[in-house]
Amino acid sequence: MTIKVSGYAAERAKAPLTPYHFERREPRADDVLIDILYCGVCHSDLHHVNADWNTTYPVVPGHEIIGKVISVGNSVSHFKEGDYVGVGCMVDSCQHCNPCKQGLEQYCDEGMTPTYNGADRHDHMPTYGGYSDKIVVSEKFVLKIPQGLDLKSAAPLLCAGITTWSPLRHWNVKQGSRVAVVGLGGLGHMAIKLAKGLGAQVTLFTRSPSKEQDALDLGADKIILSTDAKQMAAAKGEFDLIIDTVPYEHDINPYVTTLTINGTLVLVGFLGDLQPTINSAALVLGRKTVAGSVIGGIAETQEMLDFCGKHGITADVEMINMQDIDNAFKRMLKSDVKYRFVIDMASLKKS
Amino acid sequence: MTIKVSGYAAERAKAPLTPYHFERREPRADDVLIDILYCGVCHSDLHHVNADWNTTYPVVPGHEIIGKVISVGNSVSHFKEGDYVGVGCMVDSCQHCNPCKQGLEQYCDEGMTPTYNGADRHDHMPTYGGYSDKIVVSEKFVLKIPQGLDLKSAAPLLCAGITTWSPLRHWNVKQGSRVAVVGLGGLGHMAIKLAKGLGAQVTLFTRSPSKEQDALDLGADKIILSTDAKQMAAAKGEFDLIIDTVPYEHDINPYVTTLTINGTLVLVGFLGDLQPTINSAALVLGRKTVAGSVIGGIAETQEMLDFCGKHGITADVEMINMQDIDNAFKRMLKSDVKYRFVIDMASLKKS
Ligand SMILES: [Zn+2]
Ligand SMILES: [Zn+2]
Ligand SMILES: [Zn+2]
Ligand SMILES: [Zn+2]
Repeated sequence: MTIKVSGYAAERAKAPLTPYHFERREPRADDVLIDILYCGVCHSDLHHVNADWNTTYPVVPGHEIIGKVISVGNSVSHFKEGDYVGVGCMVDSCQHCNPCKQGLEQYCDEGMTPTYNGADRHDHMPTYGGYSDKIVVSEKFVLKIPQGLDLKSAAPLLCAGITTWSPLRHWNVKQGSRVAVVGLGGLGHMAIKLAKGLGAQVTLFTRSPSKEQDALDLGADKIILSTDAKQMAAAKGEFDLIIDTVPYEHDINPYVTTLTINGTLVLVGFLGDLQPTINSAALVLGRKTVAGSVIGGIAETQEMLDFCGKHGITADVEMINMQDIDNAFKRMLKSDVKYRFVIDMASLKKS
Repeated sequence: MTIKVSGYAAERAKAPLTPYHFERREPRADDVLIDILYCGVCHSDLHHVNADWNTTYPVVPGHEIIGKVISVGNSVSHFKEGDYVGVGCMVDSCQHCNPCKQGLEQYCDEGMTPTYNGADRHDHMPTYGGYSDKIVVSEKFVLKIPQGLDLKSAAPLLCAGITTWSPLRHWNVKQGSRVAVVGLGGLGHMAIKLAKGLGAQVTLFTRSPSKEQDALDLGADKIILSTDAKQMAAAKGEFDLIIDTVPYEHDINPYVTTLTINGTLVLVGFLGDLQPTINSAALVLGRKTVAGSVIGGIAETQEMLDFCGKHGITADVEMINMQDIDNAFKRMLKSDVKYRFVIDMASLKKS
């Protein structure tokens, strides 16, 4: 039997989100049926509502999902009724290509199946996200939430957390690594916490001195004002890794200058033309690297969640009701949130 | 006693090279006095003559030097009279910074001392390059030429060779790696030979079908016509490493597309603004990397020479007399050389 679901959807580009009733597939043998408790609000959600990215409507956004298992299919072995679980940005992938075999499902050669605005690989039905009360997901793409982790503030780990964790791990951040973070939003604040958790010395680049105390409170060791030429010059050659979370066009050349020999700047927030362009001299004369990274694989996401459980790391969140989502989008655009909105799905019942 | 030297210099920007007599320092205890037999002709030589890069005149170019040891200072322990030796792009560095301590003298925090157009770190006298009959170099920056390697065609290993070897090694090219090379000049032809020597499958990107046979003769497994959209599309996601040797502004986006997940494109030939700019989506959605690299460290250069000795790898060269250098520059600009001019310094005596 299919699953009747209540949620919120944008019915067309730029439309306000409104109540939407739809059905999810009849759970298959490998599926987990999840009662959604909380869902984080990610910039991508708004990009999809606004048709900034290619979107099929209606769209039910949401890919920072925390829930409780209602039931599991016959072949499910890792989850049982009552487990607290998470679902992130992917709900499937081909499982047989080279990236998939390496646990890099996010880079699946055939394209991973996104949690919303995608199509199921088997029945080709559209996927709908976490702004809803239930979801059906193959157990391979369901994550365990470690005991003791606050469920509300764990939601953003499923996208903002793994998006910053994956490059920190891939570029081997460890005790004593010098890491800088550009941008202090949902991604940036997680980058600071996770890098600090890994033992790095962490610096925030920011344009506003007013963010200093916030950055220190999150665990950063210091801030550098990117508008202050003197501070930027003093940071020349300092960082092993820079996690650049800025979601809009910006000049990365000044940050490249602050990389050490063999250092890497990783873009995780911006898809588009790098303007102004990169001057290659800084790369060539210092064996520096500019790279990109998107979310993380499933095993790596579990690793991150377990790490967060062990170190008590979660996001700083502001809880909202589902009905307030349009206002939350507006405030998110103005960076008026510390640092992530999370929807309490209990509010759906009030619709 | 200082050393009287005959060479060729550009007396001012864009001047033709003419005979130039000068003195080198009295050899110090750690110095090796070298009789120069051959010197390769590198694009940088012309850039310095033309004042494309910051140059002090007169400039005596040349940093692909092969010679025979005339005498050694008291503290020299690794070389003796009669040894065949090489000198590349550097003749000194600070020796105490982090890069130097890691054998990355080319990235010395204080700046390495270039073989020409630099200043000695001790007596502050200008450095003059290999378009001359003798040179005095600290033994730390002198390389051993393995027995059996053809001396004439070994000269380009000291710049073109190490410039391509260093990224091949740094990005861990080994048996079965899929390597592509952009550009078939002095650097590109060495990149093909060295990547092949390391066991990689090697592809040349080129705009001209006429280069196919040349590339195959050098050891490449195949060519891809970068002007052929179909061939480019078929190469999507194919390469672990691309060595981009193109010395002028060019669009790297089509090459980035041919990188595999985690693949790296390394710029080794171009210093300047990347135009058109890079679109970050390809980097982010495939964890791809754009990097740069310049020459290589001294230990790594020796490793490369020893590897070439073992595998019988040298450059393809065309020998010229010192007096023909201006014509050689003209032909090099038109890529009318297979693949490197090397000056026979015996010709200097005819001046
Ligand atoms: Zn997201
Ligand atoms: Zn796959
Ligand atoms: Zn050179
Ligand atoms: Zn140094």
